Amino acid sequence: MSRLTLAQANSIIDTALAEGIRLDFQPLCVAVLDAGGHLLALKRDERASLLRPQIATGKAFGVLGMGFGGRELARRAAKMPAFFNALSDLAGGNMVPVPGGVLIRDSNGEILGAVGISGDTSDNDECCAVTGVAAAGFIADVGGAD
Amino acid sequence: MSRLTLAQANSIIDTALAEGIRLDFQPLCVAVLDAGGHLLALKRDERASLLRPQIATGKAFGVLGMGFGGRELARRAAKMPAFFNALSDLAGGNMVPVPGGVLIRDSNGEILGAVGISGDTSDNDECCAVTGVAAAGFIADVGGAD
Amino acid sequence: MSRLTLAQANSIIDTALAEGIRLDFQPLCVAVLDAGGHLLALKRDERASLLRPQIATGKAFGVLGMGFGGRELARRAAKMPAFFNALSDLAGGNMVPVPGGVLIRDSNGEILGAVGISGDTSDNDECCAVTGVAAAGFIADVGGAD
Amino acid sequence: MSRLTLAQANSIIDTALAEGIRLDFQPLCVAVLDAGGHLLALKRDERASLLRPQIATGKAFGVLGMGFGGRELARRAAKMPAFFNALSDLAGGNMVPVPGGVLIRDSNGEILGAVGISGDTSDNDECCAVTGVAAAGFIADVGGAD
Repeated sequence: MSRLTLAQANSIIDTALAEGIRLDFQPLCVAVLDAGGHLLALKRDERASLLRPQIATGKAFGVLGMGFGGRELARRAAKMPAFFNALSDLAGGNMVPVPGGVLIRDSNGEILGAVGISGDTSDNDECCAVTGVAAAGFIADVGGAD
Repeated sequence: MSRLTLAQANSIIDTALAEGIRLDFQPLCVAVLDAGGHLLALKRDERASLLRPQIATGKAFGVLGMGFGGRELARRAAKMPAFFNALSDLAGGNMVPVPGGVLIRDSNGEILGAVGISGDTSDNDECCAVTGVAAAGFIADVGGAD
Repeated sequence: MSRLTLAQANSIIDTALAEGIRLDFQPLCVAVLDAGGHLLALKRDERASLLRPQIATGKAFGVLGMGFGGRELARRAAKMPAFFNALSDLAGGNMVPVPGGVLIRDSNGEILGAVGISGDTSDNDECCAVTGVAAAGFIADVGGAD
Repeated sequence: MSRLTLAQANSIIDTALAEGIRLDFQPLCVAVLDAGGHLLALKRDERASLLRPQIATGKAFGVLGMGFGGRELARRAAKMPAFFNALSDLAGGNMVPVPGGVLIRDSNGEILGAVGISGDTSDNDECCAVTGVAAAGFIADVGGAD
């Protein structure tokens, strides 16, 4: 298992933020966690609202916590609200089950970490995450198509 | 970016409380937070119930946390209950997604802080918040009409 | 038992803040809680630092929680650090055992509430609290002289 | 009052990390918060240990919470352990009273935010913070010399 570096995390974030600006999205916050769920890097547009760092981090931690992307987390949360309510409490809120949390996989499918984005709609957040992960040469796992 | 002062916060609160009395509303609690989500001033009618300070503060913090007024928060919470449950946990409960949380904007649209009111119905709480913010010379952003 | 009113709480706060300005103290935050430990009013000078509302509230709650003023709390905390560490955890941090937390008593000695001040040294914080309580016609109980 | 931008925060972090590498310090984590105590940017060397993000953030939040640099926080914590234990609880642990937490001031002395660094000794952490803040054109307030 190789380890995600700060340089790679930073590259994912910068590409994702640039994509958000290119598409005229709302101001974003982007967080990248390593495979152990620990923050490698985070950047928040200074115009983004106050809870965005926690939401971005919670999206990234949620996908690592359960092992599948935010889109699958959202489907399961819709079917099992009591379970996801318990998960949210277990994680101290650090579990946000919506699109925009994306697993970062290498070419063997190994999980290297996760990226979480918050600021625009969940679909737009996810779009920027996928762009950032792909540009860095990794595979973005969003949790399957709807 | 200018900073909301204690004198301005106090003026918003006093006007809002007076409006509640004029309209014969239930006893109110009014909180004003600065742009960073920190309490500038709070007043609770001594007849208002015990959790009103936390609810008023949570309404104000919620709108700053997400960057839009309480009416929009309420619409989104109705559509995305799992996400708002997670937000509530993330914020340690300091996120109350109902009308009565109002962003305080200057004439350029910059967010200077927020006011939250609790005690009567959410619509009545919001009405007093809007009156207080407008009387102080600011723009009240309630999160759009229903 | 009579009940502390918002008007009385506000008068205590305004006198205490004015005393701080008169004595050229650091920017202050002043909180007044009722006999049940619930916030009646709080004002923070906009130049005071971020944690001042929590510290002021914690000083006021601490004296109500234990039933004696902050100066006595400080003496006991020095003698029984493990007990006060546990109290702090029990209270979720809302227990700050230093001068500047003052019980508000009526002429019969009944506890009507408490005031907590933070921003300058603990002794200076306490001085403003005493001035505010006395000017409102109540008796300030600081927890005995050192 | 001007607002710290993400670009400025990022510049502070990159300079601080480069200084740590130049001086052969242990792997660092650097966090920059805005004046309201909210994360603007954070980078952690992938070799730095797991709690470094929380420690760096707690150093930065601590200096904003109290309004003076980490070196002064450390002096006060040594004199008033019960008070600082309470502060740590009040802040949910987000208050680390040691050098390496540095206020970012503009030329008028206004607080724009704070930087916190963790990874090497507190003195070395602080040295990198000062270098980063100065290189970005701001004034680093470490809390006075020992």
